[in-house]
Amino acid sequence: MFEFDIKAKNGLARAGIFHTPHGVLNTPVFAPVGTQATVKTVTPDQLSELGASLVLSNTYHLYLRPGDKLIAKMGGLHAFMQWHHPILTDSGGYQVFSLANTRKIDADGVIFKSHIDGSTHRFTPEKSIQIQENLGADIIMAFDECADPNNSEYIQLAMQRTHDWAERSLKAHTREDQALFGIVQGGVDLEMRVGSADFISSLPFLGIAIGGLSVGETKKDMHRVLEIINSHLPENKPRYLMGVGTPEDLINGISRGIDIFDCVLPTRLARHHSAFSKQGRLNMMNATFASDPLPIDDGCHCYTCQTFTRAYIRHLVVAKEMLAGTLLSIHNLHALVELVKEIREMILAGIFEENVPMLLDRWGNNANREKQ
Amino acid sequence: MFEFDIKAKNGLARAGIFHTPHGVLNTPVFAPVGTQATVKTVTPDQLSELGASLVLSNTYHLYLRPGDKLIAKMGGLHAFMQWHHPILTDSGGYQVFSLANTRKIDADGVIFKSHIDGSTHRFTPEKSIQIQENLGADIIMAFDECADPNNSEYIQLAMQRTHDWAERSLKAHTREDQALFGIVQGGVDLEMRVGSADFISSLPFLGIAIGGLSVGETKKDMHRVLEIINSHLPENKPRYLMGVGTPEDLINGISRGIDIFDCVLPTRLARHHSAFSKQGRLNMMNATFASDPLPIDDGCHCYTCQTFTRAYIRHLVVAKEMLAGTLLSIHNLHALVELVKEIREMILAGIFEENVPMLLDRWGNNANREKQ
Repeated sequence: MFEFDIKAKNGLARAGIFHTPHGVLNTPVFAPVGTQATVKTVTPDQLSELGASLVLSNTYHLYLRPGDKLIAKMGGLHAFMQWHHPILTDSGGYQVFSLANTRKIDADGVIFKSHIDGSTHRFTPEKSIQIQENLGADIIMAFDECADPNNSEYIQLAMQRTHDWAERSLKAHTREDQALFGIVQGGVDLEMRVGSADFISSLPFLGIAIGGLSVGETKKDMHRVLEIINSHLPENKPRYLMGVGTPEDLINGISRGIDIFDCVLPTRLARHHSAFSKQGRLNMMNATFASDPLPIDDGCHCYTCQTFTRAYIRHLVVAKEMLAGTLLSIHNLHALVELVKEIREMILAGIFEENVPMLLDRWGNNANREKQ
Repeated sequence: MFEFDIKAKNGLARAGIFHTPHGVLNTPVFAPVGTQATVKTVTPDQLSELGASLVLSNTYHLYLRPGDKLIAKMGGLHAFMQWHHPILTDSGGYQVFSLANTRKIDADGVIFKSHIDGSTHRFTPEKSIQIQENLGADIIMAFDECADPNNSEYIQLAMQRTHDWAERSLKAHTREDQALFGIVQGGVDLEMRVGSADFISSLPFLGIAIGGLSVGETKKDMHRVLEIINSHLPENKPRYLMGVGTPEDLINGISRGIDIFDCVLPTRLARHHSAFSKQGRLNMMNATFASDPLPIDDGCHCYTCQTFTRAYIRHLVVAKEMLAGTLLSIHNLHALVELVKEIREMILAGIFEENVPMLLDRWGNNANREKQ
């Protein structure tokens, strides 16, 4: 279980197969986010049909509601949300630091107040692992601290704590049917990043996550971090870039050796009537689409594009119909899942590197807010 | 086209086949409501999978947004919303009288202000038919006036206008691929209802709708109206009871000779986390379901019940996840579609009448607000 076979390399990019208890993941892979045990507005059937294989869910949210013990009682997260393919849970760390009302961090862990009802809770590495064992995802994360990328003193402290917590997470972990990943921190300080990559790589994790990126730093900084740590990460373990990203970010991440991505962007944009397309990001409320008989993205094979016109989607958006969110989520998720699959084929064929400029040209506009 | 073959009768109940340009309708039939060219929160695929065959959409809403001319330009309502089975549109009359901000009725028609932007519009029988021809539904309605059931003077006047408008609707109608139905009015006054049934039945409509019921009168009054007009309606034309109803209403309507129903109830209840069940209407937010491993309704064959537990649905409701609305809509719509199909089988087998008490006992609680 959890073997990671690299089938092909092209530059730093890798095409692999990661074996999990709920089936194999063909990497690189993009994971839709199901924060509260549901990828917002889509059913598991629709998710499966659009080609998703890995879903991320959030430890912080599920711990607070409905509770990890309840989910364990219902047979675990796969049974609860009826997703029978692989699931990944984060450690709860990032969301405690960004969402909880108030929080107090010490060497042992963090005390925080729930964003739902203000109640007080404590997360430690041991607690995070215990919750994640109750949830029962295939891939789980060590408890980490994500620091402000512009505060290097804090980054140093947070990285040290992350390393300490990484060892405690490993000790606390008991379920052999879960792959525990360590998390590299260190902000945009290249020296700290290399140190963190070396340290985390020295521990018996089954995969390496890169945290603390896509949190406000420049794209250039993100790319420099990915490039410098690349040779410090074990070749034979999957690498997961947390919370990333746009189509452009996926192309750039894969070309710098990343195997796994997750991001709320496709579903969040969908709820704000925005659609990925090869013509750039489209604002589907725009009057130019009022009687447009084309699909959102010509040549797209998702249910939405195979079935409906831009005119209909625009009508649903203007009429505030919830179906708009569903149809746009299906399209946006499919766009990223398909992009990553296309890249995988290119890596296997040995032609990804030479096609990076073409892919960036085709998808680059989607990083920006829509102009239409 | 539009032949109506009655395959079996059981008491006043009929099992028939109504031929339309988009396929046959097995009657009795329950039509989900797609007010704005979408049955709220479900895709056409999900609608088809749950067994729906006929969908109602609203002339008033579609005329205002996105506009009937735009829909005609996009190939008509079937193509626009991608529902390739039969569609029925109402005349817009009921909604002008109940939704528009202000309205002024005269013998010729009605002037009203849009509930969306306050703009002024005029509906006449000719205009309603023109809009419905642009929309292109299989079954369309004569323009009618639905009066307050407790104001008998107004009911008389509204009925006279409805009769006048029925003749004008027939004259205005040109599309041979649409079945135009006349509408019987007359409030709960049995004499007026019989007069209206006789008059509307004397005209060359392809079906008869019964309007002005389920608008605040008692169930007993509704049943008396259906019973008294029954023998005044042509045997060989389908009968449509507009805007009805609960499971109990469907059972009572079919046993009084009704063939077609529509109602927003299943989808509206779904958005208020309420589910039909054989144990009565369930409030899925209730804490008693927090760790309930059963489906909403044991023995139900809908996607929701075949896939998810009450515990999961309850979590989605509490977490305000939109998927709750989708899953409950699928369940509630399926419940009514299936109930009517089951009744049809009973009529064909000649055992419906004797089973009415059993059916009312099983489904009767769903007329009431949930108690749990």
